[in-house]
Amino acid sequence: MASNRGPVSFSRGDDGQLSVKRGGGGVVSGLSSVASHENLLWVCAALTDGDRVAAGKAPGGMLGLDGSPGGSAVRMLDIPAGTFNRAYNTVANSVLWFVHHMLYDTPNQPQFGLAFRRDWDAYREYNMAFAQALAAASDDPPDVRAVIQDYHLALAPRMLAELRPEVKIAHFSHTPWAPVEYFRLLPDAVAAEVLDGILGADHAGFLCRRWADAFVDCCERVLGASVDATRRQVSYRGHVTGIGVHPLGVDADDLAGRAGQQDVESRMAALAEVVGDRKLIVRVDRSELSKNIVRGLVAYRELLLTHPELQGKVMMLALAYPSRHDLPEYREYAASVQRLARRIEDEFATPDWTPILLSTSDDYPRSLAGYRLADVLLVNPIRDGMNLVAKEGPILSDRGCALVLSREAGAADELGEHALLVNPFDVSGTAAALHQALIMPADERARRCRSLAAAGSALPPAAWLASQLAALDETS
Amino acid sequence: MASNRGPVSFSRGDDGQLSVKRGGGGVVSGLSSVASHENLLWVCAALTDGDRVAAGKAPGGMLGLDGSPGGSAVRMLDIPAGTFNRAYNTVANSVLWFVHHMLYDTPNQPQFGLAFRRDWDAYREYNMAFAQALAAASDDPPDVRAVIQDYHLALAPRMLAELRPEVKIAHFSHTPWAPVEYFRLLPDAVAAEVLDGILGADHAGFLCRRWADAFVDCCERVLGASVDATRRQVSYRGHVTGIGVHPLGVDADDLAGRAGQQDVESRMAALAEVVGDRKLIVRVDRSELSKNIVRGLVAYRELLLTHPELQGKVMMLALAYPSRHDLPEYREYAASVQRLARRIEDEFATPDWTPILLSTSDDYPRSLAGYRLADVLLVNPIRDGMNLVAKEGPILSDRGCALVLSREAGAADELGEHALLVNPFDVSGTAAALHQALIMPADERARRCRSLAAAGSALPPAAWLASQLAALDETS
Repeated sequence: MASNRGPVSFSRGDDGQLSVKRGGGGVVSGLSSVASHENLLWVCAALTDGDRVAAGKAPGGMLGLDGSPGGSAVRMLDIPAGTFNRAYNTVANSVLWFVHHMLYDTPNQPQFGLAFRRDWDAYREYNMAFAQALAAASDDPPDVRAVIQDYHLALAPRMLAELRPEVKIAHFSHTPWAPVEYFRLLPDAVAAEVLDGILGADHAGFLCRRWADAFVDCCERVLGASVDATRRQVSYRGHVTGIGVHPLGVDADDLAGRAGQQDVESRMAALAEVVGDRKLIVRVDRSELSKNIVRGLVAYRELLLTHPELQGKVMMLALAYPSRHDLPEYREYAASVQRLARRIEDEFATPDWTPILLSTSDDYPRSLAGYRLADVLLVNPIRDGMNLVAKEGPILSDRGCALVLSREAGAADELGEHALLVNPFDVSGTAAALHQALIMPADERARRCRSLAAAGSALPPAAWLASQLAALDETS
Repeated sequence: MASNRGPVSFSRGDDGQLSVKRGGGGVVSGLSSVASHENLLWVCAALTDGDRVAAGKAPGGMLGLDGSPGGSAVRMLDIPAGTFNRAYNTVANSVLWFVHHMLYDTPNQPQFGLAFRRDWDAYREYNMAFAQALAAASDDPPDVRAVIQDYHLALAPRMLAELRPEVKIAHFSHTPWAPVEYFRLLPDAVAAEVLDGILGADHAGFLCRRWADAFVDCCERVLGASVDATRRQVSYRGHVTGIGVHPLGVDADDLAGRAGQQDVESRMAALAEVVGDRKLIVRVDRSELSKNIVRGLVAYRELLLTHPELQGKVMMLALAYPSRHDLPEYREYAASVQRLARRIEDEFATPDWTPILLSTSDDYPRSLAGYRLADVLLVNPIRDGMNLVAKEGPILSDRGCALVLSREAGAADELGEHALLVNPFDVSGTAAALHQALIMPADERARRCRSLAAAGSALPPAAWLASQLAALDETS
């Protein structure tokens, strides 16, 4: 397994001591339950200063799953900080992420000039470090399979295939895939290299049919690859790549176990006291440009304006924990969210009622408490590979929550029938869906919530990985 | 004929007197040569205070082509200013234009809330005013044909069809058409209404195959209309709309005649003195977010950095005349252009050499002088329906200019073979193309320029209109 972020992460305390914790982030939280799979080596990058120290101390960067040096479960790559920063922050998170989520302010950004060419070289180096580590781990055939994760590692499949032609390779994209007219923003050679990189894999997986189709469309129209529409295969440079849809779900038992712990219970009690007998709308997101927090707040404001009878009877809990504060666009976005929440507070609050509770710090048990107490869960990204919040919320909801869900989230494929789908750019439409969710009869809400929970836990991480490996084994 | 802007425009002097001039804007300059077509009534909106006074004085808003009241060539509609402003500035220019050119800063804009619903109602009223005027002009059948122009009037075809089922209706889009994944930003009902509005026409025309295909794709995937791919027809609600591609070109004789006048010659002389024996790169655009002036300047800067041998040997003339200064994004964009030009000046200028001449005032003869003197013409929009600059420049060029052209302009379809095509987001690629253009042998440049001029004048406005009418007459 290869992914940018690994299953363990180290931080260095004031005393210089390293402490270890489970890695964070959407992909890792989905994959960590499979990390103990036997014979699995997880290759990841050192992200923090603590990671670099730990990776440097362990021979060959090899660690146990508990972070102990000298294990055989994790190999943490100490990629030079300058290379890592350009590959990760600039190319992966400020270019590929923006392209796939269609986030650019196009009149002004992107500008692919001299600096980008240097950044792209760093992205190649970063991918090559992973490919070489995977190749080194593949020195004992037979039956070695490599599963490479996400847009950070789009080139690694081709690089590994060239280093070790006998290794079976799967790549999985956790993001959306851009429509071809937007993908073409990338410089031509870069666009071709990204597609060719993934086509180095024997199997390329996506979270829903729509993203898989967009990828195949790009292969056809940008690369001129030939596509077998029936068998879902792309042929390019004499190699066939199978295309699969594997909608990652939630391990419901694992999640429910965590949500029953004392730290969650105590946060529920505190929150329940503030909310009282009001209806509670909950959203839980990273402060990420694609998550559409601003329009969600504008829709809530429109709801309060157009349905004054709800004033004092409803609250919104908006948990927007920090994300990518290295990027100025993200700091500005987080500031917009705070300004807007304060404006709603100023406009509507009464001595007895706080219309909105915004929290911008990371507190996982509080997020779980929010899920459990939600009457309505609002998940309205402008574009999202899957969105696990939409699956986790209904699984945990004590009250049988209604789900207002963006049709632009991959999760809409599986959950759309039981959710209230919205166009995320349509603030009035979102406000109307929130209203519909709030007045939905309890029995209908409970019934829909059960269906959402069932759909959301249909393919938990272990089964999701198994389905990819099975598809990989079927490739010739 | 119906279009927002008409063939005449009035301004009121300090003394209250009205003066009349030819209307401006890309569409009108293309169409004005057909305005004297016999039996043609041109329906347009009053845009200026002077227009409103003139329209109010003339019985029924009827004017001659010279602006005289009581003529029968022009009907100028005095639409209430508030309605006009919401329909034109907000819906047409800040929403539909942005959608078709993919200009939004998507994390923040658009936000379709309560205000937009009111704006949309204004857009309907504005379209209905045109539909009613066209219906009134169609009271004398047989063989009345209505040709309705552009994104301002997307609803008018359906409205007119309902008022006068016997009138043959053509609609023509002078913009690109958005890919379906971007078109879906619009609220669902609005997206459907726009498509249905145009499908009220018997024939829908586009500037190139790509925009026509995008429109048909939207009809199929958003409306569920059925598409006859071979015959290029869309069937919806029991009505068939033919889809045509009519690449509007330039009347070369007319243009060359204008460019030979004294005011152009005197500007050429002044400019030639500044340029001397240096190579001249010219760009001529409205200061419009889609025109990509900023990246064009950044590419010029990269050219000077990576080819220091060109410093002192090349100049850029950037004519960026004002556009849509009512919209804050446009003012900010124009300011960015000015800052960047000053930065290049500060960085490279010597006592003998000014690297860039930026002018932001509207001076048509100076634009023509620029075309005539250009060694290289840079036309790099991020997305453009056609771009007539790319056609006008080579027609007028005395020196046989090379054309660096965005592949995202509709003109690339006809001119791509003889131009140097660039990805407009790729600054380094654009710099490389400018270099290639500058070092191109004179005979190759002249040969390409002749081919560009021939392609650009292939379908002048009169023939362009005739081809639409012929296609309209073929519809059943």
